[in-house]
Amino acid sequence: MLAVGKELLIGRTLNTNADWIGKRLAKMGSMLKEIITTDDDLDEISSAFKSIIARRPDFLVVVGGLGPTPDDMTLKGIAKGLGVGIRKNETALKLIKEHYTKRGLTSIELTPSRLKMARLPVGSEPVMNPVGTAPGVRLVEGRTTVYCLPGVPAEMRSIFRRSVEPEVRGRLGKLHRKYVTMKLEGVFESALAPIIAEELRRHPGAYIKSHPRGIREGVSRIELDLAVVGEDRERTEDEGEAIANEMRTSVASAGGRVKSARGMGEA
Amino acid sequence: MLAVGKELLIGRTLNTNADWIGKRLAKMGSMLKEIITTDDDLDEISSAFKSIIARRPDFLVVVGGLGPTPDDMTLKGIAKGLGVGIRKNETALKLIKEHYTKRGLTSIELTPSRLKMARLPVGSEPVMNPVGTAPGVRLVEGRTTVYCLPGVPAEMRSIFRRSVEPEVRGRLGKLHRKYVTMKLEGVFESALAPIIAEELRRHPGAYIKSHPRGIREGVSRIELDLAVVGEDRERTEDEGEAIANEMRTSVASAGGRVKSARGMGEA
Repeated sequence: MLAVGKELLIGRTLNTNADWIGKRLAKMGSMLKEIITTDDDLDEISSAFKSIIARRPDFLVVVGGLGPTPDDMTLKGIAKGLGVGIRKNETALKLIKEHYTKRGLTSIELTPSRLKMARLPVGSEPVMNPVGTAPGVRLVEGRTTVYCLPGVPAEMRSIFRRSVEPEVRGRLGKLHRKYVTMKLEGVFESALAPIIAEELRRHPGAYIKSHPRGIREGVSRIELDLAVVGEDRERTEDEGEAIANEMRTSVASAGGRVKSARGMGEA
Repeated sequence: MLAVGKELLIGRTLNTNADWIGKRLAKMGSMLKEIITTDDDLDEISSAFKSIIARRPDFLVVVGGLGPTPDDMTLKGIAKGLGVGIRKNETALKLIKEHYTKRGLTSIELTPSRLKMARLPVGSEPVMNPVGTAPGVRLVEGRTTVYCLPGVPAEMRSIFRRSVEPEVRGRLGKLHRKYVTMKLEGVFESALAPIIAEELRRHPGAYIKSHPRGIREGVSRIELDLAVVGEDRERTEDEGEAIANEMRTSVASAGGRVKSARGMGEA
């Protein structure tokens, strides 16, 4: 993911878009591999874009900087990264006009600022924005499918659900994922470390991570996430539960206890 | 900033650390230039680290992955990126022992997991963690000063305030920053765009950015941030206020109005 916007770099806006997309992909059995957050700057955007494309991910989701204002320069930055121009796209223009018409703004003037939202990198196509004015943009570069989405959360989510998700799902095939979150008490993270290491030796594909939640009244509290991904639903579920049970036993042997366990897959 | 942790990529944890550091630097008249968020993976960490160092920033703050568990591999990743080994650091070991002693845990065993937190990249130095166990780490590579901080927010903030901030301030000299946030009504972002463009022509160093906040009862609402940075306090303040006043006039000419304006510098 490439997140564009100075507001994300100066603590003005929390990057809830990255959080939402990360969660959404994880639920589908996929994962965000990296998030780069960059400034509204042509060179920064184009060089971040190029560095991501060079690593040949399946998908790149670019969020922010599609609007009408001068600092909205994501598409220009990407065009620069691709070494192509940007050009008025008739389909995009139609989508923008329709957006205004649907809201009863039939007499609105298509000023240069509004037309800007219809100017796309050559070789890309607009993607319908059911909520706002600026269309999303889709393009393919090498083996990577790139989606550019507006930064306004409602618009980003709407286009992501409607257009990005079906394409990601189609590419993924059918992967299942089992999540368990456990709350532990009475065991230090440093005492938990060898237990996790042993568990990862037994289940090499699994993800197990501890999050220390502080010490209350002398008792260490830790949250533990574990996840297993697999093609067979039942086997994936079983492996997740086996790890959870093994962890429970080991934590008890180390003098701690599991306060609660929640299978996120069912949530 | 390099943020390390799968929890940030799967929507498990919002990156509030990036938000906090961004805000903190902005208040000092500096700025985060880029945030890379990466997985707990040796190669991912080392290649992200190398790509950042290659761009020669003044500072790099690495957050997360300093703890005792097997997935805490930030220091190993950085050592790999630097092409050096990691080695037990006596000062770090002393800090870790002191941490346990202060909490009355004098008999705690220094297991391999606990000793792991004292193993630093060769050429780096530990930085006192007033709140938690794992010390921070400071090193210099080329023109870049690198700080590695734990991901637990209280620990990160404590080390940042105590050690990182004084060094950043020392390097910055005395820059002043004037912020204004305005709430606008009755003007579309596409109508605001040429007004902002004109203002940026008049004040080339300024930062002006609009954030659309939706349309309520047919009235478009926008938040506008503006910032000016300068060496002279009074001139910086004056320029910020001049821009705010010019924006007020232009927004009125476009049929909108400024509902409120707040000088963030005073907040």
